[in-house]
Amino acid sequence: MEIYSSHIGRLIEQLSRLPGIGPKSAQRLAFFIIRLPKEQVESLAGAILDAKENVHYCRECCTLTDGDLCPVCADTRRDHSTIMVVEDTRDMAAYEKTGKYDGVYHVLHGAISPMNGVGPEDIRMKELMTRLAKEDIKEVILATNSSLEGETTAMYLARLIRPTGIRVTRIASGVPVGGDLDNVDEVTLLRALEGRTDMGHG
Amino acid sequence: MEIYSSHIGRLIEQLSRLPGIGPKSAQRLAFFIIRLPKEQVESLAGAILDAKENVHYCRECCTLTDGDLCPVCADTRRDHSTIMVVEDTRDMAAYEKTGKYDGVYHVLHGAISPMNGVGPEDIRMKELMTRLAKEDIKEVILATNSSLEGETTAMYLARLIRPTGIRVTRIASGVPVGGDLDNVDEVTLLRALEGRTDMGHG
Repeated sequence: MEIYSSHIGRLIEQLSRLPGIGPKSAQRLAFFIIRLPKEQVESLAGAILDAKENVHYCRECCTLTDGDLCPVCADTRRDHSTIMVVEDTRDMAAYEKTGKYDGVYHVLHGAISPMNGVGPEDIRMKELMTRLAKEDIKEVILATNSSLEGETTAMYLARLIRPTGIRVTRIASGVPVGGDLDNVDEVTLLRALEGRTDMGHG
Repeated sequence: MEIYSSHIGRLIEQLSRLPGIGPKSAQRLAFFIIRLPKEQVESLAGAILDAKENVHYCRECCTLTDGDLCPVCADTRRDHSTIMVVEDTRDMAAYEKTGKYDGVYHVLHGAISPMNGVGPEDIRMKELMTRLAKEDIKEVILATNSSLEGETTAMYLARLIRPTGIRVTRIASGVPVGGDLDNVDEVTLLRALEGRTDMGHG
C-alpha cells in the first residue's frame, strides 16, 4: 500500500525534484500547501505558470525578463558602452541592488565547466561576441564568480576579447568588507594579499 | 526600478511564503522553475492544484487522503478496535512505513499549545471522542510527539478517555535505537532512565 494517497504522493514527488528540497522538506511543503486557503494555492500555481509563460531572454543582454528588452537595456540613461558579464540573472540583480553601477550587463547563464561538460558553446558567449562586434563598447567587466568555473570563463573570455582592442577588466576578489579574517578561507586570504594596493603617503 | 521583472518577482514572492524557504532559496527555485521545460512546469503547477482540489479529510480518522475514506480505514483486515492518535498525516505515514502496526489511526492535525493559542477545540479531538463513543474500541495508543505540546495533548486526552474504560497507552520515549548516548539530549537520557525495563533472568 502506498503510504500517501496518490494526489499527495504526486505533489511530494514533484516538489522533491526542486533543487535543495529533500524528501522530508517536500512532505512538509506538500502538507503546508494542501492546508492553505484555495486562493493562495491558486496564486502559487498561477505564479509558476505565468513566470514560465511570460519570462523570456532579453534580446540584448540575455537576462531573464518579462518583455523583449529588460529594464536595464531599455534605459537610455545607462552607459551602454560598458558591459558587465555575469553568470546569471541573480548576479545581475545583486549588482543592481548596489545602485552604483550604471553600465549594462551580459548574462551568460552558466560558466565553462569541463568537469560538468559545459563548454563555451553551452553558455551565451556567442551573443556577447556579436554585441561586441556590433555595438560601440569601451569596456567589458568580467564579473563571473570567483570559483574555478568562473575564473576559467573569465580567462577564456579575456583571451577572446583582447584582440578586439576593447578594454577587459576583472572584478577584484579579496576579503569581504566587514568580514572577520578568521572566517575567511585560505584561498581568499592569499588572493587578498596578492591583490593588495598601495595606500599612498597619507 | 524593481530588481526583477514582475513575473519573476511575483514567483519569488509566492515561493518565499512557503515554510523553510528564505528569500535566497526562493530566488534559486524561481530561476530553476523558469528554466524547466514547459511540461515539467505544468506538471508541478498541476500537482499543486490537484492536491488542493482532491485531498480531503478521511471521514473516519481525519487524515488527509484522496477519497472519502483513507486506505487504512477502508482496509477491513486492519484491527479497527485499536486507534493510534498522532499529530499529523506525516506521523501516520512514519508508522505505516514500519509495516508493523495493524491498527487504525486518528489524526489530530496539531497539538494543544496554550503558548500558541491552540486549544483542544482547535484540533480534531472531538472527532476522536465521537469515534470512541460510537465504535467498539479496545485501546487508544497516544503517539503524539514527545515535545511539550505533544505531552500536554497526551495527558489531556488520557484524562478525557480514562472514564470511558477504554485502555489508554502512550508510546515509549527514550534513546533512539542505534543512537550514540553522546548525541542524545539530557531530557531524553533521563526519560530513558525512568522508563527502564527489567531484562529478566536470562
